[in-house]
Amino acid sequence: MKTIPYRRKINYYETDRMNIVHHSNYARYLEESRMDFMRQVGISYDDLEEKGIVIPVLELHDQYIKSLTFGDEIEIQISLIKLTAVRFKMKYEIINIATGEVVHKAETAHCFVEPGLVPLNLKKHFPEVYEVFEKYLEPEEN
Amino acid sequence: MKTIPYRRKINYYETDRMNIVHHSNYARYLEESRMDFMRQVGISYDDLEEKGIVIPVLELHDQYIKSLTFGDEIEIQISLIKLTAVRFKMKYEIINIATGEVVHKAETAHCFVEPGLVPLNLKKHFPEVYEVFEKYLEPEEN
Amino acid sequence: MKTIPYRRKINYYETDRMNIVHHSNYARYLEESRMDFMRQVGISYDDLEEKGIVIPVLELHDQYIKSLTFGDEIEIQISLIKLTAVRFKMKYEIINIATGEVVHKAETAHCFVEPGLVPLNLKKHFPEVYEVFEKYLEPEEN
Amino acid sequence: MKTIPYRRKINYYETDRMNIVHHSNYARYLEESRMDFMRQVGISYDDLEEKGIVIPVLELHDQYIKSLTFGDEIEIQISLIKLTAVRFKMKYEIINIATGEVVHKAETAHCFVEPGLVPLNLKKHFPEVYEVFEKYLEPEEN
Repeated sequence: MKTIPYRRKINYYETDRMNIVHHSNYARYLEESRMDFMRQVGISYDDLEEKGIVIPVLELHDQYIKSLTFGDEIEIQISLIKLTAVRFKMKYEIINIATGEVVHKAETAHCFVEPGLVPLNLKKHFPEVYEVFEKYLEPEEN
Repeated sequence: MKTIPYRRKINYYETDRMNIVHHSNYARYLEESRMDFMRQVGISYDDLEEKGIVIPVLELHDQYIKSLTFGDEIEIQISLIKLTAVRFKMKYEIINIATGEVVHKAETAHCFVEPGLVPLNLKKHFPEVYEVFEKYLEPEEN
Repeated sequence: MKTIPYRRKINYYETDRMNIVHHSNYARYLEESRMDFMRQVGISYDDLEEKGIVIPVLELHDQYIKSLTFGDEIEIQISLIKLTAVRFKMKYEIINIATGEVVHKAETAHCFVEPGLVPLNLKKHFPEVYEVFEKYLEPEEN
Repeated sequence: MKTIPYRRKINYYETDRMNIVHHSNYARYLEESRMDFMRQVGISYDDLEEKGIVIPVLELHDQYIKSLTFGDEIEIQISLIKLTAVRFKMKYEIINIATGEVVHKAETAHCFVEPGLVPLNLKKHFPEVYEVFEKYLEPEEN
């Protein structure tokens, strides 16, 4: 199953003196789209944290293809490409809406932990949450 | 009593496309100097949080006099100008070290709370911490 | 004339370990609503910068009334309360949409400058832009 | 040749409500250490920008091994692992000074461009800068 792409404007304070979005902000855009994904699939991240499920980032891979600046609007296509009982991986493409171009590609890897960063087997302890993730899994072909 | 001014360099990612430090970063520089002040006077902020003393910001007043950019180095002079059992106020001057000019003036107001943001009478419950603050109080003349 | 209040969600990365929005982010929310105001009144800030009109912040005053955290949604009511040929002042109220409460009050003061931070008389050099601002001026009573 | 590792403290505003440094800040720590590296080798980044050499990020790979929080102090070991006339790659290890543990590993890829993001052959147009980079190149064994 697919979610609706996440949209947002680029803020002035996200640019740097090179007149482009500072590269550290992409991790934030990805997080916004990930949180939006969870809201859309019915397991909003603040609800998960209340249940005691915390989802830190293990790995981040950003490819900066074209720059963005203040005034641009973007759309982020996100998909869940890997899922195990204790980990998952998401893939992202950021599109500059005005040009239709993919300006950024990224992947993030995550694990499930309890508060205090103790590893958590989601499939075992929260099967109902695991099943939601599973419905949205779209493994890559190659 | 006086503390040693806090020094730091301006980071690239703190500039915006106007080629100056984005104004939202000053609140962060002030916080850094406040945390440094606490370290210097012997009540480091992470120790306070461990004791259950949390210090949110109630008010912030920034005056942007001259701009800063990447490559600049600053010094922040900080002083405690007001103290009650439940609140305090700090005053700041940011100096561009290369020119000696005051580029920014600021004040912040704070209260003491317990985790969960419950108001806390510091003087009553942590007199030893209150006394440290008191030693550094420098009320303004006028 | 009035503009439509600006709305946005609180992002996870805007919280700090006190579990509330870090106070430095409010300056960013205010900027977002200011940029949105300009878009609404027909003088979007990127257009202004292209004409050579830059609008730095001279002063910022924040009053933190109630805290916000991830999952909250806010609405920002903004008004232009002062305008001269070379300067202006804006006033803001941030409302937590779920509770209807005003959680933050702020004011910012700005000047008009050319690129390179040279002062600019907007009324004289860009009367058509000045007039737009003027239409939205709502001086405070007291 | 080796440079002296970059050191800094973790700021309060860099933590999030998980009580750890928000993952987007690591890109900023890496940038700080990269700028420090350039200062140490004698080609400070603000000087480069003045000459018309701009160095955007093409790729970023972060591995989050252990978390950091407010109060921690880190040391960043950086090395230049690849260099061509138009591109280079840097590698980073972040160490928690108190424990001696490597808490983060990263790599960034960059290109040289002129202002306006036009590709630049550094070796041809700025051989004296290229040679400095070359002296610090430490290709990886495998």
